[in-house]
Amino acid sequence: MTDLLESLRRELGDIVDCSPETLETARADRSGHRSAERPLAVVHARTVDDVQRTMRFASRTGTPVVVRGAGTGLAGAANAGPGELVLSTALMTGILEVRADDLIAVVEPGILNGDLNAQLAAHGLWWAPDPASRDISTVGGNIATGAGGLLCAKYGVVHDAVLGIDLVLADGRMLRLGHRTVKGVTGLDLTSLVIGSEGRLGVVVGATLKLRRLAQGAICTITAMFPTVRDAAAGAAAVTAAGVQPAIMELMDAASLAAVHALLALPSPAPHAAQLTIQTDGPAAREEAAVIGRVLEAAGGVVAITDDPAEGERLLQVRRAMHPAMASLGTTLIEDVAVPRSAMPAMFDEIARIERQHGVSIPTVAHAGDGNLHPNFIFDGDEVPAHIWAAADELFRAAIRLGGTLTGEHGIGMLKSRWLAEELGDDQWQLQRDIVRVFDPQGILNPGKVFLGA
Amino acid sequence: MTDLLESLRRELGDIVDCSPETLETARADRSGHRSAERPLAVVHARTVDDVQRTMRFASRTGTPVVVRGAGTGLAGAANAGPGELVLSTALMTGILEVRADDLIAVVEPGILNGDLNAQLAAHGLWWAPDPASRDISTVGGNIATGAGGLLCAKYGVVHDAVLGIDLVLADGRMLRLGHRTVKGVTGLDLTSLVIGSEGRLGVVVGATLKLRRLAQGAICTITAMFPTVRDAAAGAAAVTAAGVQPAIMELMDAASLAAVHALLALPSPAPHAAQLTIQTDGPAAREEAAVIGRVLEAAGGVVAITDDPAEGERLLQVRRAMHPAMASLGTTLIEDVAVPRSAMPAMFDEIARIERQHGVSIPTVAHAGDGNLHPNFIFDGDEVPAHIWAAADELFRAAIRLGGTLTGEHGIGMLKSRWLAEELGDDQWQLQRDIVRVFDPQGILNPGKVFLGA
Ligand SMILES: Cc1cc2nc3c(=O)[nH]c(=O)nc-3n(C[C@H](O)[C@H](O)[C@H](O)COP(=O)(O)OP(=O)(O)OC[C@H]3O[C@@H](n4cnc5c(N)ncnc54)[C@H](O)[C@@H]3O)c2cc1C
Ligand SMILES: Cc1cc2nc3c(=O)[nH]c(=O)nc-3n(C[C@H](O)[C@H](O)[C@H](O)COP(=O)(O)OP(=O)(O)OC[C@H]3O[C@@H](n4cnc5c(N)ncnc54)[C@H](O)[C@@H]3O)c2cc1C
Repeated sequence: MTDLLESLRRELGDIVDCSPETLETARADRSGHRSAERPLAVVHARTVDDVQRTMRFASRTGTPVVVRGAGTGLAGAANAGPGELVLSTALMTGILEVRADDLIAVVEPGILNGDLNAQLAAHGLWWAPDPASRDISTVGGNIATGAGGLLCAKYGVVHDAVLGIDLVLADGRMLRLGHRTVKGVTGLDLTSLVIGSEGRLGVVVGATLKLRRLAQGAICTITAMFPTVRDAAAGAAAVTAAGVQPAIMELMDAASLAAVHALLALPSPAPHAAQLTIQTDGPAAREEAAVIGRVLEAAGGVVAITDDPAEGERLLQVRRAMHPAMASLGTTLIEDVAVPRSAMPAMFDEIARIERQHGVSIPTVAHAGDGNLHPNFIFDGDEVPAHIWAAADELFRAAIRLGGTLTGEHGIGMLKSRWLAEELGDDQWQLQRDIVRVFDPQGILNPGKVFLGA
Repeated sequence: MTDLLESLRRELGDIVDCSPETLETARADRSGHRSAERPLAVVHARTVDDVQRTMRFASRTGTPVVVRGAGTGLAGAANAGPGELVLSTALMTGILEVRADDLIAVVEPGILNGDLNAQLAAHGLWWAPDPASRDISTVGGNIATGAGGLLCAKYGVVHDAVLGIDLVLADGRMLRLGHRTVKGVTGLDLTSLVIGSEGRLGVVVGATLKLRRLAQGAICTITAMFPTVRDAAAGAAAVTAAGVQPAIMELMDAASLAAVHALLALPSPAPHAAQLTIQTDGPAAREEAAVIGRVLEAAGGVVAITDDPAEGERLLQVRRAMHPAMASLGTTLIEDVAVPRSAMPAMFDEIARIERQHGVSIPTVAHAGDGNLHPNFIFDGDEVPAHIWAAADELFRAAIRLGGTLTGEHGIGMLKSRWLAEELGDDQWQLQRDIVRVFDPQGILNPGKVFLGA
């Protein structure tokens, strides 16, 4: 071990960091999980060359490497353990190019999503993926997880917003995947394959992003209170079915609302009441808000509409306070299933059943515009207890049964690797795993993550 | 050979077709290229089971298989030659499910894009990918080529409109890739990998499509005549740069215009004049058309705007007549490069240079909203002559030099496989080829297509 570290230091110099705090931090992301022990070292790459040299060293010595952005992941995918090297791309924060005419930007992986968007705003531009963690997560991490966010029902997820990726392979070679053009079908679409691959296929060292112009026109915000979460889910489904496309459509169940109202010292909502918070934007924002208002009233909601952006932002703060509100209750396992939009009411029925049968409370919010639910399991201590996993297990199975999927945006990481084969089927699991091997024949990139035991 | 055919017939019965006309047809797509000789047989699959049995037979006997939809491809990807079996999915035309609430449809691969959309229209729905061949090409072929179309700058290409794919592997096993939910990051994104894979990874036997609601509101059509094609290209770039998103933005150069006007017996346009035809739709169609009109006038265009849909369709007919107009001039090699939108004027300069230096005429149209150009090389006879390939070679290199790509929507097939490694680099070419091997270890699916000699 010390030999290995010494030769690593000889090779890479002072970007190799073995300070206890750094190593300790690298054991965990924000999933509430941490590795058994500290990793070997953290390499703070500043250049593509640093990344390539690190990977050449790792493949020569057979050392496993965990790539790390900002460590805000919720699936344990960036957690690094004993014998592992952490390769951080967090210091590679450059914006190499912004082209307003072509609506593209070329960036390094470490730039924070929020920083990028602040700089793009000066050009009247915008990279649409907006995870709630945008101010603290990196673009490279967003790409590697295939992140989504509040606005993605209308404006798309990472999958829709990346044209090209520069990828350093496990052996240190660099590939330029994709293109700078908005259209292109030259060869296999490896750019899409890398999106959401959670550090298993290579190190993202650069990306050509597809930008949008900042939306013009009004922003209208609609809130609607419903007697139960099932009614709210049905209201959201009715909005989708009515053919209007909100920019944001967030659902909060009674337990979530109660926790946030308590945190923000707002008056308590009625028992069982659940809320939809919806925004429309663009040239037809007002007309669309009016249509949505009527649909929600017909669905039994108590509706309020404002076209004051400040008031709208204030209303959304309730949703944005969900994470701190949950944290105030205990340790949280934030789940992330997605179901077809029409199955949302049924999925809330399933959650209620699981709560009853397992005697747990599962405060749940949802990106209701795309059927992506975040049920929150609260517990005490550092490790997810067995009875919580048992309840989560039922949640996953229920989602799959309803035509859904294990993870809408957070990824598989280590937390859900046990369930992956169940959704994919054994044949597909094996084939995906064989594809990983093509990129990384030695299996040194993020071993064991996503593909359990592989 | 006869042994092989006999055992194939014994296994599959009367879906095995060896009639000379069928075999002759299977030698070619619409690229102007055909294989050296007729293939062995065409299997007309009607069910997934037919496909699986065919593939099991093929892998057992090591027989190469060329999957075929409607055979409208322009890259020679479906051309089948001696010793090859053709597996046609054209008779698998079912629509298994349409969900207006979830905006999805589940279909078989052989349904024609136009037929699907006619049936979806009854539900107020629409699958956006709209290749000019939509009335004659299959959804399976659209997926396997990653097709684009006129509307795709605003409404997306196939890549943006498929949630899941059922794929039969070379050995006959079936995988269900992707999901029914609009969001999902469970495992590697194999759905995207199969899109545009040109029959090399497996047989698409089913697809879950992401639908849109039929657009509401006005449709405005703008035409703008410019003194030269460079001016028209600059005009199109100015529209993109102005931040309005047309539904359609098509450019025709002088030679294209002249040919179409001759075919349709319209008055001849001014020499060198080039035209943009643009449509806006949705709630802001009229305002957007007005903005675009002003931008184009400032760019030197002579502009006309109409909000009469019938008149708009009449104006678009000029663009839609491009294929027959070219066919009236000789045999056509329809090229398909894409460049960043800002590079379109420079790409037209390159085309003019290549025309001068090679003494050829290259009538060119472009999906100007996404930088995708279709230069048409006209020649006599069945085979693309060497001097045309020499000019095309320069065209490809020019596009790549300008930051572009070999193919925006038609694919690599056999026609561009020689240039693929140049764009991808040798390392990426090899890696892509190794991925193909994971799906198809024996290499029996469409051998030699896309990956030259592999
Ligand atoms: C409060 C909060 C809110 C959140 N909200 C959302 C949300 O709305 N939507 C959402 O999708 N997620 C959300 N997340 C989860 C998380 O922020 C995202 O997954 C984010 O994309 C992770 O980025 P990161 O830079 O922190 O990556 P990390 O956590 O460091 O890494 C995540 C994965 O990406 C890999 N990776 C990182 N960088 C690279 C690289 N350069 N090359 C290759 N692989 C790399 C890692 O190996 C790991 O597998 C939230 C998290 C928190 C804490
Ligand atoms: C007049 C005309 C206009 C055109 N306009 C456009 C346009 O605007 N945009 C555009 O993108 N293309 C266009 N094309 C090209 C062509 O129509 C498209 O590539 C179309 O997607 C091909 O569909 P197909 O069913 O004819 O496929 P085929 O030509 O039969 O096959 C094409 C490729 O797909 C594979 N394939 C077909 N079915 C399957 C399946 N079920 N499983 C696996 N692989 C399969 C084949 O092996 C082959 O590699 C045009 C062609 C013509 C003739």
